[in-house]
Amino acid sequence: MVPERLARLSNTLREKGIEHALLSSFTSLRYFTGYRATVELEPSPMTPVLGALLWIRGEQPTLYLADMEAGEGIDSGVRRESFSSYIIDRPMFAVQDLSAKLVARLKALPASKVAVELEEIPAALLDALRSECPHLGFCSIEEDLSTFRMVKDAEEIETMRAALALCDLGQGIAKQHATAGRTEIEIFTALRQAMELQEGGRVPIIADVVSGPRTALTGGPPSGRKLEAGELLIVDLVPRHLGYWGDSCNTCCAGEPNKEYREAFEGLAAVLADAIAKVRPGLRACDLDKLVRTGVGKLGGSYPHHTGHGLGISWHEEPRIVPYNTIPLEPNMIIALEPGMYFEGKWGMRLEYVLRVTESGAELLSKYRHEL
Amino acid sequence: MVPERLARLSNTLREKGIEHALLSSFTSLRYFTGYRATVELEPSPMTPVLGALLWIRGEQPTLYLADMEAGEGIDSGVRRESFSSYIIDRPMFAVQDLSAKLVARLKALPASKVAVELEEIPAALLDALRSECPHLGFCSIEEDLSTFRMVKDAEEIETMRAALALCDLGQGIAKQHATAGRTEIEIFTALRQAMELQEGGRVPIIADVVSGPRTALTGGPPSGRKLEAGELLIVDLVPRHLGYWGDSCNTCCAGEPNKEYREAFEGLAAVLADAIAKVRPGLRACDLDKLVRTGVGKLGGSYPHHTGHGLGISWHEEPRIVPYNTIPLEPNMIIALEPGMYFEGKWGMRLEYVLRVTESGAELLSKYRHEL
Repeated sequence: MVPERLARLSNTLREKGIEHALLSSFTSLRYFTGYRATVELEPSPMTPVLGALLWIRGEQPTLYLADMEAGEGIDSGVRRESFSSYIIDRPMFAVQDLSAKLVARLKALPASKVAVELEEIPAALLDALRSECPHLGFCSIEEDLSTFRMVKDAEEIETMRAALALCDLGQGIAKQHATAGRTEIEIFTALRQAMELQEGGRVPIIADVVSGPRTALTGGPPSGRKLEAGELLIVDLVPRHLGYWGDSCNTCCAGEPNKEYREAFEGLAAVLADAIAKVRPGLRACDLDKLVRTGVGKLGGSYPHHTGHGLGISWHEEPRIVPYNTIPLEPNMIIALEPGMYFEGKWGMRLEYVLRVTESGAELLSKYRHEL
Repeated sequence: MVPERLARLSNTLREKGIEHALLSSFTSLRYFTGYRATVELEPSPMTPVLGALLWIRGEQPTLYLADMEAGEGIDSGVRRESFSSYIIDRPMFAVQDLSAKLVARLKALPASKVAVELEEIPAALLDALRSECPHLGFCSIEEDLSTFRMVKDAEEIETMRAALALCDLGQGIAKQHATAGRTEIEIFTALRQAMELQEGGRVPIIADVVSGPRTALTGGPPSGRKLEAGELLIVDLVPRHLGYWGDSCNTCCAGEPNKEYREAFEGLAAVLADAIAKVRPGLRACDLDKLVRTGVGKLGGSYPHHTGHGLGISWHEEPRIVPYNTIPLEPNMIIALEPGMYFEGKWGMRLEYVLRVTESGAELLSKYRHEL
């Protein structure tokens, strides 16, 4: 699918009168080359830049990748070149080495425009390119790229199904382990262990695991707090598989829920089910947001966060399901819907499913079922 | 200790004729404000910049932090301001909001120089500042900062002892679980679970867990590969505690090691012990590197990587123990030493301890003991 994505990039650039592109965000590297980073994306002391894709019109795209990177997944149509990261022979010069290699290519071009991701590219790298290549104009392509990955292709949908299967597994374990006396971190480590054993490797994960009064805060990392009988537990799991994020959220109760929790849970589940039933191409993100937000309001609750969001290589992306967003849904968008209700100092609850917009409605991709 | 660190920053800037500073790397935010990021440092779809410390000479330092951040740990001497990250009311404008807030302060300054981290700051942010504040000169402070955190203060040493205690725990579990029939990922999830339960919260971790012929590759993430009897297992664990990284590496054998492994292990352990015995203030990093590299050579082995490195807020930092580095050791530097030997296509081995340079030698901070 990488060749099709690059062809679309070419068209977008042409429409904007831009000849070439130099992309350096992880999302763009993954999307336009197939490259999957090693497990950790923490800021690296070995290089401030992991890689850069140089796309020169009419030439084979080149991925310049730090020499410490294994480079798994790179599409056969993309040429790979290395630049130096941390080596034992001299002080670090990753940015200098990468910029020298890019300049060697860019200098040969006639006066033209080069699209870059201005909010991602380090100033030192762009400064070097500007100074050595005054004949080139570097312009931002970020606004276009922010909606570029909204509609998923077949390969992405398949990868995301696997990411969501990890969510299903994790939510099942969370529900099983949500008993009085267990700590949030015990529940978290149990579910993550199950995910990593299923994956046969490490699973990067973003997660809210909060219990009792902490649920009113909407989220937070698991702590050593022990669940008490009758308390709520919010578990929001966002694991990454081959560079793509899944998402999921359930709220359950340690033991028997009281009437207030039961009614809220049933109400919230009905609002979510109703929203999913109304999803179809053409529905605008803001109208979907309003539908859900109004539904929760009728239950006497509210939530300060988005109603939902697209997901994929980033764990939030367009279409963001928020009040201002007029983007209409399209087939093969994959969106998470996550209405909640929170009562300050008391308790909170959130339920989330991920679905694929189809030609006529929605396919529910989350296979676990919400259980209080 | 934050006030002392800021006072040293002030002196460094003064010596270089720089009036002010705007620092945006996670390492600088942690070091100069005490701020501890939430568990994940993955590239965030909510803001490309987590925060920025504005240090104007003669004024109270201000940490501008994305409004989604809890801001734990910020020193009472540092003022906190927020800028907008992802909110539901409008499209993302984190960089615009942050730059507008910075410009409001910077515009009021007379013509002067402002130190920035050019390899970290996104071009979009620096472009905005340059365009709105042409009376200011933005210059790189990265070379100075690369050696700024080499000598640890009391608070850092205490935090790192806790990070290293996590390593001790993890190495103990790894050794226990390294038996024939277990997979690399099983061993990894078991040891990480123990660490997170001890921590009472999530523990970010960088880790090599490789067995059998994979050990010849020096490292790699845990896979579903099953250990066979008599095979080697390299476990290199780098967990983060309150923003500081620990480090550790042991190589052990699933069952009874053969004579070759036993001799290599004993030889490597002796080289490491000899190096630790020779550590003292004044010894240059390159001489320590040579000592260890030569020792391993005499065993008939070699390693392509560094002999060791400083560690702290980043998991590799100065003093890097490598052939070119003439930096002399000083009291309260904390360094990891990790000699290894690798035989292509066959097997590899690495042993690592972390130590603190004292007035007269070294204090071993790693409490676990290497066991084949």
